[in-house]
Amino acid sequence: MILLLGASGYIGNAFAHCLAQRGWEFSAVSRKQVDYTRFPRLLELLKQTRPEFLINAAGYTGKPNVDACEIARADTLDGNALFPERIAHACLVTGTPWGHVSSGCIFSGAKIIQDGQTRVEKDLTQADCRAVIERSPESVQGFTEVDSPNFSFRDPPCSFYSGSKALGEEAIHGFGDRYIWRLRIPFDEFDNSRNYLSKLQRYRKVYENVNSVSHRFDFVNAALDLWHVKAPFGIYNMTNPGFVTTRQVVEMIERIRKPARAFEYWQNDEEFYKTAAKTPRSNCVMDTSKLLSTGIAMRPVHQALDAALKNWKSE
Amino acid sequence: MILLLGASGYIGNAFAHCLAQRGWEFSAVSRKQVDYTRFPRLLELLKQTRPEFLINAAGYTGKPNVDACEIARADTLDGNALFPERIAHACLVTGTPWGHVSSGCIFSGAKIIQDGQTRVEKDLTQADCRAVIERSPESVQGFTEVDSPNFSFRDPPCSFYSGSKALGEEAIHGFGDRYIWRLRIPFDEFDNSRNYLSKLQRYRKVYENVNSVSHRFDFVNAALDLWHVKAPFGIYNMTNPGFVTTRQVVEMIERIRKPARAFEYWQNDEEFYKTAAKTPRSNCVMDTSKLLSTGIAMRPVHQALDAALKNWKSE
Repeated sequence: MILLLGASGYIGNAFAHCLAQRGWEFSAVSRKQVDYTRFPRLLELLKQTRPEFLINAAGYTGKPNVDACEIARADTLDGNALFPERIAHACLVTGTPWGHVSSGCIFSGAKIIQDGQTRVEKDLTQADCRAVIERSPESVQGFTEVDSPNFSFRDPPCSFYSGSKALGEEAIHGFGDRYIWRLRIPFDEFDNSRNYLSKLQRYRKVYENVNSVSHRFDFVNAALDLWHVKAPFGIYNMTNPGFVTTRQVVEMIERIRKPARAFEYWQNDEEFYKTAAKTPRSNCVMDTSKLLSTGIAMRPVHQALDAALKNWKSE
Repeated sequence: MILLLGASGYIGNAFAHCLAQRGWEFSAVSRKQVDYTRFPRLLELLKQTRPEFLINAAGYTGKPNVDACEIARADTLDGNALFPERIAHACLVTGTPWGHVSSGCIFSGAKIIQDGQTRVEKDLTQADCRAVIERSPESVQGFTEVDSPNFSFRDPPCSFYSGSKALGEEAIHGFGDRYIWRLRIPFDEFDNSRNYLSKLQRYRKVYENVNSVSHRFDFVNAALDLWHVKAPFGIYNMTNPGFVTTRQVVEMIERIRKPARAFEYWQNDEEFYKTAAKTPRSNCVMDTSKLLSTGIAMRPVHQALDAALKNWKSE
């Protein structure tokens, strides 16, 4: 039996769906049934039910967006750092392998290859950086699993959310049998306030940037596959291979969904942060070679975005 | 055997001294010998050595002062919230009772009784508040162990240090056999950069406020006594009973130590925070009735300060 924590959330919901689809026996315990956020209850639950695998899809993301985490600091730290540590300890003590939904948002920017040199450009919003991407996409590389987070409390500035997620990875590092599945900017074909494509279609103005993004069901299926094929435990970047600029996604929306509205862009970072956002946002490119080397596929990012927009299901 | 963590620190050092003085068998493990900050190592250590009691005197305080914690956010959170949680879990699993050095700095202000009404005044720097204290000290009451922290991430503003300490108390709350010993502004007769009396004598200008403070050895002996007399586990405010204004302490220094210098005061909070401090400071009055009800004594605060200054030992 697989024990699923956080089944009511956006990502947990997709896990429940995919587990059911695969016919895998699982138990989606709710906090009302058992308050698994308390260490003694969680330990008891693991001892009683002896799951073969645990999935932590619970976390604190902030509503309506990550700015809310700047206010709800205790809940953010508890949900994203102290709670994962609790799970790691309970799993170690009971010998339970597990997987944790982490986030690529602990990185900012990309690696730029220029004149044979690789340098990290933390701020991809700069016009010169966009120019590099437009001229030669092959000159842009993503962060790998051995790179240290560069959008974290140890490498500021960062948002409180990102800081807490990086701290959560640290807290569960170096012991136990567990996957760290790094998601980024989830999207799929189902209109939802958490769906990147829904957000883009609803924003008054759009924020131009470069990102690796994760199709929600591609992500969940790849996570389950890692466990299924007994891939080595560890960290995995799990975005759809490649990256996209916001402009590219907007053009796909215009071409495929033919919205009545015209898209407007924030003039620059200054206008965006002054008007629409309080805390710095992570925008980054992830390297997915490690995942792909296990033989587990996620569709290339342009293909996954194209399919989601063509199969769009309104709420 | 008692296991002492953090023996090299200012408070841990005093624990080692008092334990030796009492002839109690103890082991002061250093991180170089065993990296007890890693959960698997700590668990192994407890299973191997089976201590009858564990003392956590380790924590991250920031050097030269609490402002440093605003920068070293990851270390602050790890040392004061995630690490105590690690200890709590290892102690629960191995059935080890323990004690944690926490801090009263998760509170700000005092309870003011006026016209038969009790209200919390969070900002004791205000002139009217000082006036109340000077007119009638009995109109000021401290925070008790059932009051919720009011200088924390849940009740901002707070310093990052205070936020992390309050989160640490939360993380170890509600399970296991453990004391939370709340220390505040340690002082004693030994000149030291961490000693409140040393600081006051060295500051260029002094910050006027009202506080409960802890004589370092009174605190440590009371903590050991709680365990010795098998007092109920739980939270204990452990300051010397009463409170003092900075002005009162300065007058004692002038009377007893007769320094050549004259003391100057910051004109107001504005000047202090603009010039000498980055993050808000906790100044507060603690209620010590719970500790005293166990029959364990700490000297009244004026007596303890007077004795420390009369027995002053230069570094």
